[in-house]
Amino acid sequence: MAQLVVMYKTPKDAAAFDKYYFEKHAPLAKKIAGLRKYEVSRGPVATPAGPSSYHLVAMLQYDDMAAIQRAFASPEGQAAVADLGNFATGGADILMFETRPA
Amino acid sequence: MAQLVVMYKTPKDAAAFDKYYFEKHAPLAKKIAGLRKYEVSRGPVATPAGPSSYHLVAMLQYDDMAAIQRAFASPEGQAAVADLGNFATGGADILMFETRPA
Repeated sequence: MAQLVVMYKTPKDAAAFDKYYFEKHAPLAKKIAGLRKYEVSRGPVATPAGPSSYHLVAMLQYDDMAAIQRAFASPEGQAAVADLGNFATGGADILMFETRPA
Repeated sequence: MAQLVVMYKTPKDAAAFDKYYFEKHAPLAKKIAGLRKYEVSRGPVATPAGPSSYHLVAMLQYDDMAAIQRAFASPEGQAAVADLGNFATGGADILMFETRPA
């Protein structure tokens, strides 16, 4: 499998972020072909030392890296990327990688 | 569920890192009570724009945040944390959060 991890930095207005994310952005992301599993953080995103600079983490699972590349290249993927500017006011760090059991 | 995400920055010697990680560190991590699932990145950790500053990402799943806190506080957890200095020469960023379906 492959994992797309989107780490949203703390936005200017957390309540507005959450409302937009779950009402508008998540439905857009769910339209992208190839998505196998989609989880989000619930509550604070912490570090062992205390609070992190992130407000929300989204973890999206695909079959492999090629599927993630196709997802980004698709019209639905481009729409989801373009939508980030509408709510991710703190920015976001995105990582993607294939996974295997440790 | 809750997720512990350990993002290892590119180490000085990637081959030595990998050998130590899979031969020594992962077996230590697997001893920690409460661990439900343990996956690692395979191959490069990328961003949509190209390579990331990370060499490996480990994703460890627990029942909830309290289980992660207990894991860190346990002797086995403390041993795994202390072991980081033996191989994580680039440092590591750690995030932890409860999860739910999006």
